[in-house]
Amino acid sequence: MAHDIRILTEAELRQVVKLDLAAIDVVERAFAALAGGKVIMPPILSMAIPEANGEVDVKTAYIPGFDGFAIKVSPGFFDNPKLGLPSLNGLMVLFSAKTGLVEALFLDNGYLTDIRTAAAGAVAARHMAPEMVTTAGVIGTGVQARLQIEAAHLVRPFTKVLVWGRDTAKAEACAADIAARLGVDARAETDPARLVEQSQLVITTTPSRSPVLMADWLHPGLHITAMGSDQGEKNEIDSQALTAADAYICDRVSQCEALGELRSALATGLWQGEPPAELGQVVTGAITSRKSDNDITICDLTGTGAQDTAIATHAFSLSIKAGKGTAISS
Amino acid sequence: MAHDIRILTEAELRQVVKLDLAAIDVVERAFAALAGGKVIMPPILSMAIPEANGEVDVKTAYIPGFDGFAIKVSPGFFDNPKLGLPSLNGLMVLFSAKTGLVEALFLDNGYLTDIRTAAAGAVAARHMAPEMVTTAGVIGTGVQARLQIEAAHLVRPFTKVLVWGRDTAKAEACAADIAARLGVDARAETDPARLVEQSQLVITTTPSRSPVLMADWLHPGLHITAMGSDQGEKNEIDSQALTAADAYICDRVSQCEALGELRSALATGLWQGEPPAELGQVVTGAITSRKSDNDITICDLTGTGAQDTAIATHAFSLSIKAGKGTAISS
Repeated sequence: MAHDIRILTEAELRQVVKLDLAAIDVVERAFAALAGGKVIMPPILSMAIPEANGEVDVKTAYIPGFDGFAIKVSPGFFDNPKLGLPSLNGLMVLFSAKTGLVEALFLDNGYLTDIRTAAAGAVAARHMAPEMVTTAGVIGTGVQARLQIEAAHLVRPFTKVLVWGRDTAKAEACAADIAARLGVDARAETDPARLVEQSQLVITTTPSRSPVLMADWLHPGLHITAMGSDQGEKNEIDSQALTAADAYICDRVSQCEALGELRSALATGLWQGEPPAELGQVVTGAITSRKSDNDITICDLTGTGAQDTAIATHAFSLSIKAGKGTAISS
Repeated sequence: MAHDIRILTEAELRQVVKLDLAAIDVVERAFAALAGGKVIMPPILSMAIPEANGEVDVKTAYIPGFDGFAIKVSPGFFDNPKLGLPSLNGLMVLFSAKTGLVEALFLDNGYLTDIRTAAAGAVAARHMAPEMVTTAGVIGTGVQARLQIEAAHLVRPFTKVLVWGRDTAKAEACAADIAARLGVDARAETDPARLVEQSQLVITTTPSRSPVLMADWLHPGLHITAMGSDQGEKNEIDSQALTAADAYICDRVSQCEALGELRSALATGLWQGEPPAELGQVVTGAITSRKSDNDITICDLTGTGAQDTAIATHAFSLSIKAGKGTAISS
């Protein structure tokens, strides 16, 4: 029995799927479902191809109550820039959760991942940052530095942004982009300790393998979202900070143990005792991460298949409403 | 930098990719590469969705010397027939092995899997069956019963085919299809022991959970290809047969231990000592499975990601030559 499969390119997806409150809400719903314990999220399938300096990861998750589930394939081929090609590519496939039929192919080259990653940062900020944030800081100067700030601004309308990067020119360019996009006062800060000191919300978005944010920079009323570490060698936050904070929360404990800030804290023996709580539990109110405006909170994001299923379902619904994409009868 | 992605539907793939010697040869090349030890083939990603009586498997493999690698997604939703839909669907995505860019999407609903599975049976028959096969038997009456016989006929042009199934009407229909397709004498046989007795080549293609072929039916000059078992509960061949045979060969030992006939033989303690050899070693000549026309040989096929990469690469090359498919610029 033939059925139509909808195919959307990156350009079409950029027209249809925006980094807005709707995207944040659908990703928040995925985190709430994760806390419910009924999400099925197998370990990531990962294949390294050393001959081509490449790797490919496959993520998926089934979320009860969502009409579809996504399978995301993310290749990273790190010699591509020599050929004038981007390192990261990939696509998502959306399947019906009732019949397993392919419903849509999103040839997004990572765009939907960018959106769902930034949206998770906003979910963390919404539920964990102090109510009043006047200055937000970002450590890192890439695509996610821009998008995380943009997403956080939707839930905490700060008026000032500080950007730090190892390369000051890149930090200045990033600050200029943010100022233009959000109409806020944004500037590069040359000292990351000074950046943290002035901010109530700090987001780390680097691929660093050694801490870029130290425990003795923590101050009352600070929230940190660390979203850079997604591999076994990465580490952005001084492990001492995890135990010094009033609350340290993971997107998914099993992933953070292997890929996130928790990995380093476990390796050094600094994190002992109970596993941390998860963001979904904060979203549903099962736990309270911030008990006062003076608390220090940290959220560790490694990126989950549940977010992919959430954003793919959202993209499908928006594509249909907008009549976008090419239908292929299969 | 935009590039074209070629999309082919099942109907287009059926026009372009045939079960022929070219398909058998490309799958044989994948097995030879597997024996070379340089193939990268991660464990299968598998997600069960009990709420929908469904499951989804993801397979992949990188084969040095192949221009691309495939990722295959195979959903099986077993309540679909109630909705008038097939249980099995799925697609393959072909990536460049140099850049990780998506090159093609094959919306094949399992057609390419059917072809690469039958082709593997022909590779086993080519390298393991006696030179002279006049009668081939098949146990099972489904799509693979037909395709395995068709593929084996390309490498061993037998003149007679016997078909056994629990449902005699289905066995008769299968025999009629085979007779019409290959122009051979094909008929249903009501006793599986009699089928084996008369055949030099027997293929088992059932989802059985208890043996359909007993050890005391073995006779000199018999080759068996068991391709039905691909899950931890399945078992087609009496485990005694594996040790009684002169050679028992796996497509991939690590998979057969978990999913194939070897699993049952290990569970009962009947298989002891060295792990079996692999089909790739037979293909390259590293080992000789059949030392005389009177030997008894068994090949256990569970299906490998390497076959998927082989058939997807083949399908891409044929599609380009035939100018088939829809190009989408991404």
